[in-house]
Amino acid sequence: MRINIERLMSDIERYALYGADSQGGITRPSFSEDDYNVRERFVRDLREMGLSIVIDGAANIWGKWPGNGQKEGSIVIGSHLDTVTNGGKYDGALGVLAAMEIVRTLKEHDVVLQHDLEIVSFTAEEPNDYNISTLGSRSFVGRLTPDDLKGVTDSNGMRLEDSLERAGGGLHKFFGMADARKEKKAFVELHIEQGKRLAVRDISVAVVDRIVGIYRDKVTVTGEANHAGTTMMADRYDALTAAAEMVLAVEDVCCHTGDDTVGTVGKLNVIPNAANIVPGQVEFILEVRGETEKQIKQVLDVVGSRWETIQRRRKVSVTRNNILNQKPVPMDQHVVKILQQTADELSLPYVTLASMAGHDASHMAHVAKTAMIFVKSPNGKSHCPEEYSAPEDIEKAVNLMLRAIVNLDRDLA
Amino acid sequence: MRINIERLMSDIERYALYGADSQGGITRPSFSEDDYNVRERFVRDLREMGLSIVIDGAANIWGKWPGNGQKEGSIVIGSHLDTVTNGGKYDGALGVLAAMEIVRTLKEHDVVLQHDLEIVSFTAEEPNDYNISTLGSRSFVGRLTPDDLKGVTDSNGMRLEDSLERAGGGLHKFFGMADARKEKKAFVELHIEQGKRLAVRDISVAVVDRIVGIYRDKVTVTGEANHAGTTMMADRYDALTAAAEMVLAVEDVCCHTGDDTVGTVGKLNVIPNAANIVPGQVEFILEVRGETEKQIKQVLDVVGSRWETIQRRRKVSVTRNNILNQKPVPMDQHVVKILQQTADELSLPYVTLASMAGHDASHMAHVAKTAMIFVKSPNGKSHCPEEYSAPEDIEKAVNLMLRAIVNLDRDLA
Repeated sequence: MRINIERLMSDIERYALYGADSQGGITRPSFSEDDYNVRERFVRDLREMGLSIVIDGAANIWGKWPGNGQKEGSIVIGSHLDTVTNGGKYDGALGVLAAMEIVRTLKEHDVVLQHDLEIVSFTAEEPNDYNISTLGSRSFVGRLTPDDLKGVTDSNGMRLEDSLERAGGGLHKFFGMADARKEKKAFVELHIEQGKRLAVRDISVAVVDRIVGIYRDKVTVTGEANHAGTTMMADRYDALTAAAEMVLAVEDVCCHTGDDTVGTVGKLNVIPNAANIVPGQVEFILEVRGETEKQIKQVLDVVGSRWETIQRRRKVSVTRNNILNQKPVPMDQHVVKILQQTADELSLPYVTLASMAGHDASHMAHVAKTAMIFVKSPNGKSHCPEEYSAPEDIEKAVNLMLRAIVNLDRDLA
Repeated sequence: MRINIERLMSDIERYALYGADSQGGITRPSFSEDDYNVRERFVRDLREMGLSIVIDGAANIWGKWPGNGQKEGSIVIGSHLDTVTNGGKYDGALGVLAAMEIVRTLKEHDVVLQHDLEIVSFTAEEPNDYNISTLGSRSFVGRLTPDDLKGVTDSNGMRLEDSLERAGGGLHKFFGMADARKEKKAFVELHIEQGKRLAVRDISVAVVDRIVGIYRDKVTVTGEANHAGTTMMADRYDALTAAAEMVLAVEDVCCHTGDDTVGTVGKLNVIPNAANIVPGQVEFILEVRGETEKQIKQVLDVVGSRWETIQRRRKVSVTRNNILNQKPVPMDQHVVKILQQTADELSLPYVTLASMAGHDASHMAHVAKTAMIFVKSPNGKSHCPEEYSAPEDIEKAVNLMLRAIVNLDRDLA
């Protein structure tokens, strides 16, 4: 039993028409017109497959293929259909369309599962105009409540609750998700890797056994704003040159951890930001991602002590405010093992990796036995038009997932 | 013959009421309501002193005290009354009010000059909502023409030509400035130093023999935007860490010139500037100020070669666009000499310095024999509420200027 890769690839191209933008990418954030259109397309496709459809409070779309009733609850497969601005065809959509292909293949082979099998497309996994990402999965598992979302508006003043209703959800339907989440026994999400770790090893798939922790501090460096002409070099307390050293310290420390811990300063603002004024203040966000809390802490400790030296030497002040401390999320060891064993069964080379990005799976892990499969991104790129995975790698990954679902159905109580 | 420092200090406080802001500073950019009000105040004061008033096309305000007619043309003293946002009491105003005090003192002592003596307050020396600084002096000397200014609007869509008319100027009066500028024989501007070179030497005044050149490049560093989680440290082409090294190279090179050349990156923007994206691009402005073109070029050469190394090592691309190349402006050696000799005559210790900031004097030097006097800024601060010069230093500087004007009147043809 193998999936039909041509059919899946044609689905990917078909869905990529929704939100195709003038720069060769896909711009399909949740609650955009293209998102409403792709939702309709998706519901129509699920209906044609004979699945029964539920749209929950967070406008997550669920399509259920009933099992034979011998085991309670459902195994869920899927991901999200929304994209970033000028994103690619694969991030999100691949996991949803692979789930459709798996159900179609199982049905074509007259396989009957003991659990119900559900396809899900989560709402707003990516950043969106409401500034709430993983909105759908967080709402589904109870981490976002109607109180959190009531009154939230987008940049045009449009209320999130109205957008949810337009998509078939609504805050009044949130209470129903509490029951629904009890039925979900397992969740397997297939996704592109978005990095080069598979490409470097020339391996098509990875079993994801953990989702990294993400730590973010908002850092403010305060020196003294001064005239860029009349203030001699020796008299300066330049917040930008201080911040420059701090940014380089983060890079240097993370390049020498010996593991996959990464540290980034991606956002940095200079104040007052004028060509003729020595910067008085710089604000930036330090982000560290690591597989374990210990690895993150080690980087933070070394960076912190390097920063103290810089701060003392340059006589600037540094304040830090923690704005995110998302712990690493271990995937379910049982599901991970089934994925690994299935790969062995198929003689498919794989590696076991941590996911360095957050995913809906991070939240679903809270309510269901969860794991992920990664497909190689040959160029490591994502969130851009160049995002790509090769059909032969996708085929291997989806076949692994197909067989693993059968095994999981058999092994899971 | 000495000036009345109490009267001058009370003028400074009196003028500081115009545009006094809630953060303890003065916010009086040209064409603000407070600017229109202070202009009225100034014209009233000049009129009460018996001066004849001319407001030229650029709304520069001129008050003339006629000489005895033995020598043609006028000696001009003054500066500007506009301030930056949340600036101080001294930058600009001190030079204008010192000029008033000098004329009052000369009149009280029944001194009769052979040249006419004119007080000037230039329009919009500081940055303003029309994004044109040294507007008044540049227009006066013919470096800005009605064609340059026609159609220019502020952030509210207000036309510059209308603002000029409201202040008593107007584009239709520009042609008159061509004749007027021929009458100006000399210009002496008294200004706060805005730096610490006098404070460090514990000297009250400086004779300015040159205004620095200012060179600015807009620099774009292009790396590769990437996911801050999935992109391992070794796979990154981070435009911000590259820019950080480049910024530090500028600082390092300028700290080791052995002269007063300064280099600054005051404006820097990160693209896309998101916490979870490795920066793909950084734009910044490199500014170098030096007393001679050679000193500026030397810094640019060394910085350029350091940047090439960084660029090669980090595999990022760097483009540079020159956006300003203002040559150093030598002050008139005759006027400089008279200022120096007058200081000696008064047994007043002084140093001869370059001005590291641009001033209306840079442009006036184009049409008249020009020089400047600096007053100590004990804390080096300017463009902020903490901007300060001590009355005893101001008194010395204005007395130097008073006596120098008499000497200049005698020596100048």
